Amino acid sequence: LRKCLYNAGFRPGDIVMNTFSYHLTPAGIFLDDACNGIGCVTVPTGVGNTEIQVKTMAGLKINGYIGVPSFLMSLIKKMEELGHDTAKGLSMEIALVAGEILSPSLRKGLNDYGIIVRQAYITAELGGVAYECPQENGMHISDDLYIEICDPVTGEPLPPGSIGEVVVTDFSNECYPLVRYGTGDLSVLDEGECLCGRTSYKLKGIMGRADEVTKIKGMFVHPRQIDEAAAKFSDEIEKIRVVVTRSGVTDMMTVEIQLKHGVAGIDTLKTAIDEKIRESTKLRGNTVFVAEIPEGSKKIEDKRKWD
Amino acid sequence: LRKCLYNAGFRPGDIVMNTFSYHLTPAGIFLDDACNGIGCVTVPTGVGNTEIQVKTMAGLKINGYIGVPSFLMSLIKKMEELGHDTAKGLSMEIALVAGEILSPSLRKGLNDYGIIVRQAYITAELGGVAYECPQENGMHISDDLYIEICDPVTGEPLPPGSIGEVVVTDFSNECYPLVRYGTGDLSVLDEGECLCGRTSYKLKGIMGRADEVTKIKGMFVHPRQIDEAAAKFSDEIEKIRVVVTRSGVTDMMTVEIQLKHGVAGIDTLKTAIDEKIRESTKLRGNTVFVAEIPEGSKKIEDKRKWD
Repeated sequence: LRKCLYNAGFRPGDIVMNTFSYHLTPAGIFLDDACNGIGCVTVPTGVGNTEIQVKTMAGLKINGYIGVPSFLMSLIKKMEELGHDTAKGLSMEIALVAGEILSPSLRKGLNDYGIIVRQAYITAELGGVAYECPQENGMHISDDLYIEICDPVTGEPLPPGSIGEVVVTDFSNECYPLVRYGTGDLSVLDEGECLCGRTSYKLKGIMGRADEVTKIKGMFVHPRQIDEAAAKFSDEIEKIRVVVTRSGVTDMMTVEIQLKHGVAGIDTLKTAIDEKIRESTKLRGNTVFVAEIPEGSKKIEDKRKWD
Repeated sequence: LRKCLYNAGFRPGDIVMNTFSYHLTPAGIFLDDACNGIGCVTVPTGVGNTEIQVKTMAGLKINGYIGVPSFLMSLIKKMEELGHDTAKGLSMEIALVAGEILSPSLRKGLNDYGIIVRQAYITAELGGVAYECPQENGMHISDDLYIEICDPVTGEPLPPGSIGEVVVTDFSNECYPLVRYGTGDLSVLDEGECLCGRTSYKLKGIMGRADEVTKIKGMFVHPRQIDEAAAKFSDEIEKIRVVVTRSGVTDMMTVEIQLKHGVAGIDTLKTAIDEKIRESTKLRGNTVFVAEIPEGSKKIEDKRKWD
């Protein structure tokens, strides 16, 4: 991860806000350590608290950002809402983003504020797997790793140029070697030469998930978590599904529920379900009661468009 | 803080959950470092997510806890609610608690579950200031610090046995020496000998705050934060105050609002104010509209009883 950050342009003395969660997921602490390791001052702002984060950003003249890209845009929009003159120039110069798909329009939006945006592909088990160079058209694979692109069902390696699951072998960590670790992420290997001069192969971005697991606001959500939350309401709920959409740069999670016949006390139920979903997914969703959830629907319906 | 933890009974190999926030406040990372430093395995669970924390606690057979005491009790109650047999014995053995007043009844409640509870007095600027020994009747002052008990208004040292503001001088940190740093916390110095054999003086617990700043759910709340939140609604709000109460072991924050004559759209207003209060204090409160806030009320009215 130090290499990731250094390649992205982070340098000793930079003041960097790390907006990944330090709680229950390793991203926050991993990147905090890496960021301190290259001599930056790391400000552990974590998730949420947008208004306080904006004050921190302005007050400390923060010039580096680590987190999901959409949250950086939310911070800038909040700054403008609070009357900061972002046209005069933000102190923010460089962002290392990970954890969600970066759309070309969002990258351009951030570039327009004078921010260099570099993507990284990071997992809890492996740390930094791959990172963008200034060419910004794919992520160079970390030297320590051996990567295969495989059929997600059979696990067999696929021919060059195929979309498949990223499978990683890593002997660099002696305490925790990993052999053919299936990340569940879909990508394509790019074996071509890169104009930046780096010779390692690239991953052409992350194209989605091999299974039904979906990443919402940077957090994995598995159908099982939805079922778990719904299980406490088995007397009331006939069917449940989650619909993921995107409003501007923000993921929206709607929990659709088809109730059993004659269920009453809907307001109380909505509050209770919202709470369970939050406990189970760590995300705030909006519960709506629908007449019918179509037969054969996916438990998590991803309707986001990545323009 | 390593001394704090070691004195409390934490030992290498312990598996410790750290429930202080790692975001925007230093407590989480300070104690994480200290805990790793003595050889414990630290699980950064942070705040909230009670259900996931309970699963973590049971799944990893966690035996050490760091955080506010009331949250530990909340976790145990949630465990019971989820069907865990806590009578058969919890894996939890030792808790270092800080950040809120530990009532004798809460300590006894936790002891009844077989958990040793040791208090510490920790501040963002100084780290560990004082910690309890097995006598559990006051906190020994850290060797590095010089402490005075002073009049909060004049700053003059008070005679032995007086309640006053804890004022700390610390030369141990070369980069950040502090001379007569007023903590804002009220306590009494105990110069008597301790049966535990330690010779450093003790602080007889923390008796409250020197100013109106109040600690709710372990977070400082200043009247200014309430005014800031209210400022956005100057057309609607006549008066505002926060009332702090305690339900069981949990702090409750009620935001009382006296509206201006003829203000409508109360539901929307409630939601908007709730959100502003949350942004400003990082705490979830409940807004209620009252007919009148008495003349001369404090901005933060602390009605908690510490039995």
